[in-house]
Amino acid sequence: MVYFPEVEKIQYEGVGTKNPFAFRHYNPEEVVEGKTMKEHLRFAIAYWHTMTQDGSDPFGNPTNERPWFGATPLETAKNRVEAFFEILVKLDAPYFCFHDIDIAPEGDTLEEFYENLDIITDLIKAKMDETGIKLLWNTANMFSNPRFVNGAGSSNNADVFAYAAAQVKKGLDISKKLGGENYVFWGGREGYESLLNTDMKLEQDNIARLFKMAIAYGEKIGHKPQFLIEPKPKEPTKHQYDFDAATTLAFILKYGLEGDFKLNLEGNHATLAGHTFEHELTVARINDALGSIDANQGDVLLGWDTDEFPTNVFDTTLVMLEILENGGIAPGGVNFDSKVRRSSFAKEDLFLAHIAGMDTFARGLKGAAAIRKDNFLSDLKAKRYASFESGIGASIVAGNEDLESLTEYSLKNGANIKNESSHIELVKSQLNDYLV
Amino acid sequence: MVYFPEVEKIQYEGVGTKNPFAFRHYNPEEVVEGKTMKEHLRFAIAYWHTMTQDGSDPFGNPTNERPWFGATPLETAKNRVEAFFEILVKLDAPYFCFHDIDIAPEGDTLEEFYENLDIITDLIKAKMDETGIKLLWNTANMFSNPRFVNGAGSSNNADVFAYAAAQVKKGLDISKKLGGENYVFWGGREGYESLLNTDMKLEQDNIARLFKMAIAYGEKIGHKPQFLIEPKPKEPTKHQYDFDAATTLAFILKYGLEGDFKLNLEGNHATLAGHTFEHELTVARINDALGSIDANQGDVLLGWDTDEFPTNVFDTTLVMLEILENGGIAPGGVNFDSKVRRSSFAKEDLFLAHIAGMDTFARGLKGAAAIRKDNFLSDLKAKRYASFESGIGASIVAGNEDLESLTEYSLKNGANIKNESSHIELVKSQLNDYLV
Amino acid sequence: MVYFPEVEKIQYEGVGTKNPFAFRHYNPEEVVEGKTMKEHLRFAIAYWHTMTQDGSDPFGNPTNERPWFGATPLETAKNRVEAFFEILVKLDAPYFCFHDIDIAPEGDTLEEFYENLDIITDLIKAKMDETGIKLLWNTANMFSNPRFVNGAGSSNNADVFAYAAAQVKKGLDISKKLGGENYVFWGGREGYESLLNTDMKLEQDNIARLFKMAIAYGEKIGHKPQFLIEPKPKEPTKHQYDFDAATTLAFILKYGLEGDFKLNLEGNHATLAGHTFEHELTVARINDALGSIDANQGDVLLGWDTDEFPTNVFDTTLVMLEILENGGIAPGGVNFDSKVRRSSFAKEDLFLAHIAGMDTFARGLKGAAAIRKDNFLSDLKAKRYASFESGIGASIVAGNEDLESLTEYSLKNGANIKNESSHIELVKSQLNDYLV
Amino acid sequence: MVYFPEVEKIQYEGVGTKNPFAFRHYNPEEVVEGKTMKEHLRFAIAYWHTMTQDGSDPFGNPTNERPWFGATPLETAKNRVEAFFEILVKLDAPYFCFHDIDIAPEGDTLEEFYENLDIITDLIKAKMDETGIKLLWNTANMFSNPRFVNGAGSSNNADVFAYAAAQVKKGLDISKKLGGENYVFWGGREGYESLLNTDMKLEQDNIARLFKMAIAYGEKIGHKPQFLIEPKPKEPTKHQYDFDAATTLAFILKYGLEGDFKLNLEGNHATLAGHTFEHELTVARINDALGSIDANQGDVLLGWDTDEFPTNVFDTTLVMLEILENGGIAPGGVNFDSKVRRSSFAKEDLFLAHIAGMDTFARGLKGAAAIRKDNFLSDLKAKRYASFESGIGASIVAGNEDLESLTEYSLKNGANIKNESSHIELVKSQLNDYLV
Repeated sequence: MVYFPEVEKIQYEGVGTKNPFAFRHYNPEEVVEGKTMKEHLRFAIAYWHTMTQDGSDPFGNPTNERPWFGATPLETAKNRVEAFFEILVKLDAPYFCFHDIDIAPEGDTLEEFYENLDIITDLIKAKMDETGIKLLWNTANMFSNPRFVNGAGSSNNADVFAYAAAQVKKGLDISKKLGGENYVFWGGREGYESLLNTDMKLEQDNIARLFKMAIAYGEKIGHKPQFLIEPKPKEPTKHQYDFDAATTLAFILKYGLEGDFKLNLEGNHATLAGHTFEHELTVARINDALGSIDANQGDVLLGWDTDEFPTNVFDTTLVMLEILENGGIAPGGVNFDSKVRRSSFAKEDLFLAHIAGMDTFARGLKGAAAIRKDNFLSDLKAKRYASFESGIGASIVAGNEDLESLTEYSLKNGANIKNESSHIELVKSQLNDYLV
Repeated sequence: MVYFPEVEKIQYEGVGTKNPFAFRHYNPEEVVEGKTMKEHLRFAIAYWHTMTQDGSDPFGNPTNERPWFGATPLETAKNRVEAFFEILVKLDAPYFCFHDIDIAPEGDTLEEFYENLDIITDLIKAKMDETGIKLLWNTANMFSNPRFVNGAGSSNNADVFAYAAAQVKKGLDISKKLGGENYVFWGGREGYESLLNTDMKLEQDNIARLFKMAIAYGEKIGHKPQFLIEPKPKEPTKHQYDFDAATTLAFILKYGLEGDFKLNLEGNHATLAGHTFEHELTVARINDALGSIDANQGDVLLGWDTDEFPTNVFDTTLVMLEILENGGIAPGGVNFDSKVRRSSFAKEDLFLAHIAGMDTFARGLKGAAAIRKDNFLSDLKAKRYASFESGIGASIVAGNEDLESLTEYSLKNGANIKNESSHIELVKSQLNDYLV
Repeated sequence: MVYFPEVEKIQYEGVGTKNPFAFRHYNPEEVVEGKTMKEHLRFAIAYWHTMTQDGSDPFGNPTNERPWFGATPLETAKNRVEAFFEILVKLDAPYFCFHDIDIAPEGDTLEEFYENLDIITDLIKAKMDETGIKLLWNTANMFSNPRFVNGAGSSNNADVFAYAAAQVKKGLDISKKLGGENYVFWGGREGYESLLNTDMKLEQDNIARLFKMAIAYGEKIGHKPQFLIEPKPKEPTKHQYDFDAATTLAFILKYGLEGDFKLNLEGNHATLAGHTFEHELTVARINDALGSIDANQGDVLLGWDTDEFPTNVFDTTLVMLEILENGGIAPGGVNFDSKVRRSSFAKEDLFLAHIAGMDTFARGLKGAAAIRKDNFLSDLKAKRYASFESGIGASIVAGNEDLESLTEYSLKNGANIKNESSHIELVKSQLNDYLV
Repeated sequence: MVYFPEVEKIQYEGVGTKNPFAFRHYNPEEVVEGKTMKEHLRFAIAYWHTMTQDGSDPFGNPTNERPWFGATPLETAKNRVEAFFEILVKLDAPYFCFHDIDIAPEGDTLEEFYENLDIITDLIKAKMDETGIKLLWNTANMFSNPRFVNGAGSSNNADVFAYAAAQVKKGLDISKKLGGENYVFWGGREGYESLLNTDMKLEQDNIARLFKMAIAYGEKIGHKPQFLIEPKPKEPTKHQYDFDAATTLAFILKYGLEGDFKLNLEGNHATLAGHTFEHELTVARINDALGSIDANQGDVLLGWDTDEFPTNVFDTTLVMLEILENGGIAPGGVNFDSKVRRSSFAKEDLFLAHIAGMDTFARGLKGAAAIRKDNFLSDLKAKRYASFESGIGASIVAGNEDLESLTEYSLKNGANIKNESSHIELVKSQLNDYLV
């Protein structure tokens, strides 16, 4: 069945177009810095927001008009595969992502869940073969079912831990079946509601145990996706253990996971933690841990995850700059973990919103490439840190100085050290000229 | 000279007293869990807020009435030593802390600064010998002088790095001279104003270089205080590298500093980072990194560091609970990094405010001890995590399970896993009965 | 049917009790300042959180165990009346509150909704007559149904406005039928998602039109409850028009509603707006607009409405102080707009949580009364503002001065004006002694 | 004396220029919507940030290189006039603003302050006559001097109130002398540190008394500038009474000041209150209270007033859209209440930063005009609210409906009301095409 008969494959038509169902900036085959836009951006569409999000919120019922509901949950699940690939193809998106429960009904037993997953992943595999579209990552939803009320790997209930392990095993089996390039852990309820009744050490030790089991199982089945942890500071729990990139790096280092785990960073999670998105990418990049991104944006004046489609070209320019500095994002990608606003409830908004996001990232890519072509920021930094390239600075960096030698140097050098103005207002104003 | 002739040594008079210059809860020699309150709390007074803070803020001029200003900066510095020890003695505070520039004028050259420091530390040493009061920690202020506009260890200017090193060397020499039990690094401007012109990797590498030089110099001079890093998320810079406890632990682990460095945690810095104070203490404790605390409180509805004297007995109860769980805070202590409000400008407010803080922590200590005596929270947790003490849970913790064995277990165990209600509202209400 | 056979009527047993199903502080008939606690506190229980909240959140499915689901929505609705009054009676709560859709299914048509409401309100009325429990307020839910996606009174769709009016009419009819003492408007979606497509003036004019229609209809049917507006700054919309008490007062003044409307203030809404709860009460009180309160608390480190049961005795002490200053809260009351945490899913948590809240407010009442008995804060203020009781201050207040006379006065009086220290740290520490 | 000999009058050179001392977007004489950019924008430069801000912050000493310090405060003040007008002329800024203490030393007595003000305003007047540059507004600084520790109009000390009145009188005399077009009240410490010792009603009544004295005095001397109140939610006090636009409107309405007072809105104050800048402008505009703007920006991830020069073209586009909708901002203007970052300490940064701000607002003006030319948002709104232009909607707006008639309508109209999707993601993406 065709679910969007009125929508053609989205074409690049450029800025002048009046057609809302066209790209104004994203031109998949346009070459930037030696690669096509499509290769740079590696766009992925998120099953959960696109196929299962219904427009409800804690204060209101569903609003979204979605034409794929069937007579049974499994029938609906099958229809969704059909509709999803129609969307992927029409948007020319090379990748997709999902949680296990997004694609198949949980049923009443674990066996039934496994069976449903097998049925649906067969369908998905056929669609992948047919279209060439690939799996960026999958994950197990270990936070929605009531059994996960107190977490999964961090649950106080050993049976729940075991159940989570069973979901992860199946997730890795599916990853192998579908050739998933990454596998994500988002600690939906790995955190606490109250410290009063929480044993943080046991909970974190247990999470690490689960992750090591996943590594071991991947090795055993001969399928090794890049494992990714997705930081978020809070919501749904009061405190999520993977608060931000740095916190998650501390966890990775403490438990010796650095060879197998990188980060999946999300824009709205960054701002909820008090950081810019580009900050989180920089932290990951300089620690060789930039895995993939969830490319949404939040409203910095709101205190919860709004998961908006990215439309801020400042942000995407700085994000793409980090990705280019990183030498690209592969095997990760740019996944839209974004949902249409509750008032954008028409089914065609799924297209309009993704086009908005893709165009905004295309603008970002072009802007970042222009900044790099001009060496605008790299020259600025080279000049700014030049003192560490020679003389005492180079000697410090080389490890040839100590407190005594530097004291001797400083006594000679004197207390009136001259710094250069940053002219940062000029820099910010000039940056505007690179907004596409 | 006596600066507070109207203030006697502060005595414990108990709750009924109408005397504002008396302790209502802090009874230094009262024994709690086998130690005196004085031994538990290890109170320290901060030179900067007590002796040099003037009541000014970004919108207003000094208000504080302070009777120790002399004809020259050095004379003022000498008067301050006299006044400070009068305060310490009258409050019966066993410890104090300072930055280098708090105690002595910087002068025009590094030599002059060194000389001033020598003069003043001689006076301080004499006072310490006379009174038995000890140095909890000292540190170098590497953020106020304009040379540190872009940081110290993280400065883009190698000469500034060298100057910082010279301050740290002197700081460690002073620590040895005065028998300092800890040495603190607070990264006042170790962070960035804008990512656009920042090389985060070089900056963080350089900070680590400075810390390693400090370790090496301490070893060389045969004086090894506990090194402490004090996290803060922002202010004065837009982003401080030592954002919170977890971020700082990531830094410590990355650069292999875990043998020498622990954390100095501050209440207001915790809340600015989006955490409770007790959260930060827990994170440090379970990572064997709880070094010392700056015992102030902030206003969670404000976005800057207000450094208020602690008066919230909820908070101090939970903080003292963590400290008792940690087996005490020594060689660290409870330092009041707190300043009187601008409207509390009378000189005697220095006493009233410290009494308020000391009483509030004494309440916290007594409340925490009562909670422990009843096993109120420990029983709660033991029951809550009991499933990891036997059966499948114990086997998980022992490392005997993997994804496959847990899948097998879960298939048998079934999907309807029973959790217990947390009754968290009851727990929170019962906690109130322990507020002293 | 009895839904909680294992729960007896909750009795006051005092602080020593180990019985979790007993009041430790709330003693309904205990007299404080000449009135019983029950008369002071006028507790109300909220139908929505107690009867319909299911423990779900945006990331998870329902967890709450509730024994009243029937074969049809209407049967469930009938069971809920039974269960609700069992809870009210066993908690000895004199009041309750509800939205229209809490008590009765909406059905497919407005007629059907009206019919269902008639059926259920007949049952409720019988229960009220039987128990003597009264209706503090009711309201119309004009935000959950998809038709209200863009607001009710502020909708861009005139048909939606009309539908909202029809709900308000029925709400007032019900209010008359049940003797409601107040009628509340909470502007659930009266705000905007984006200013780009919003005509704020028209939307606010329309809300005022709806309110004036309500006043007129109340007059017509001879039933005049106190109308209340409940401020909230955001959530679900990005911006709610009734941001806080002051903003809502501006609205009330602009549209000339001050004779008919007061405020229903909520603790968690206050903190989301950047205010303490007591601030909002003070603003309302000094503008003769303190109508009623929703007595929950939030987590100030989180950015969304957590609607927790109040357990913070600081807050409740200051809140009750405002209510006593106001001469009481009647005809309003203390309504628990609070929901059990997702992990407190047992049915008996409904009792435990309300007991926690009622005890916490009883502590607050006793603490506030003790503060007033000692004239602790009133004396402080009287002394602090004494300069406006005589001399130039009294003349200013009497309106006898102008810029010229005050200039003349100041030229004589001189520039060195002496202020008194606030000793605010002492005040805050002494306040702790009043925590019950 | 010439203070910036190396800086020529700044010229418009267009986007391609490499000259940092040139406008790339601001072309004063370019006509937009029938007026020149200069007439639209009415740029003003703030004396305080430009002439007296020294680069210090609560953690650091001054960094700014400023060449105008003389041997005495009065000499420095005279030099500043010279330097300030050099800056104004070279930037072609038509307006300026100041607090009384920015321009002249306070001296030891009120008489001395008056004399200093007379001397300096004579110099300023001469410069104004010479250059044609005008006074947008002046104000009295009633928050920096220690006498204002507890506020000015809201002080608990009647002598302080009187002193404030004397400053306001002089401020109005100066306004008359210099032809000031507006007169501003920013309530720097009109708020509270703690509610415990605050009589909010008396304090707010007194502020209103001061404002009414100002109105009366203006009438008496025959000089009636537009009075403006500048909202800010917090900082320096915990709570400022003029929290935001809506709160200030409540105050204006309560005290009957609406004929004489409008609002001076600041970007960073808006975000500190939880609002976008454009929100505050909209609130003011629809209440006929949009007076003037302080055109800075903040960092939404920080919790204090950073007063940055505006460089965000999104924000300035939306702000200029509001100003164009308002029919312009006159007699107000666009005042840069912005300070260079501490690291931009070179004296020429004063030019670079203002150029950045002026260019960013010029971009905003051009973008807003393009949006209006295309009727992009006005068409969107017209269509969105069309239902209120005819039928039942028009009847509601006309006041012809009541709850009963609308109930009757709704019973006929049915419950299945159709709304239109907002397509808001498309709208936001299209908006990007208007960024200049």
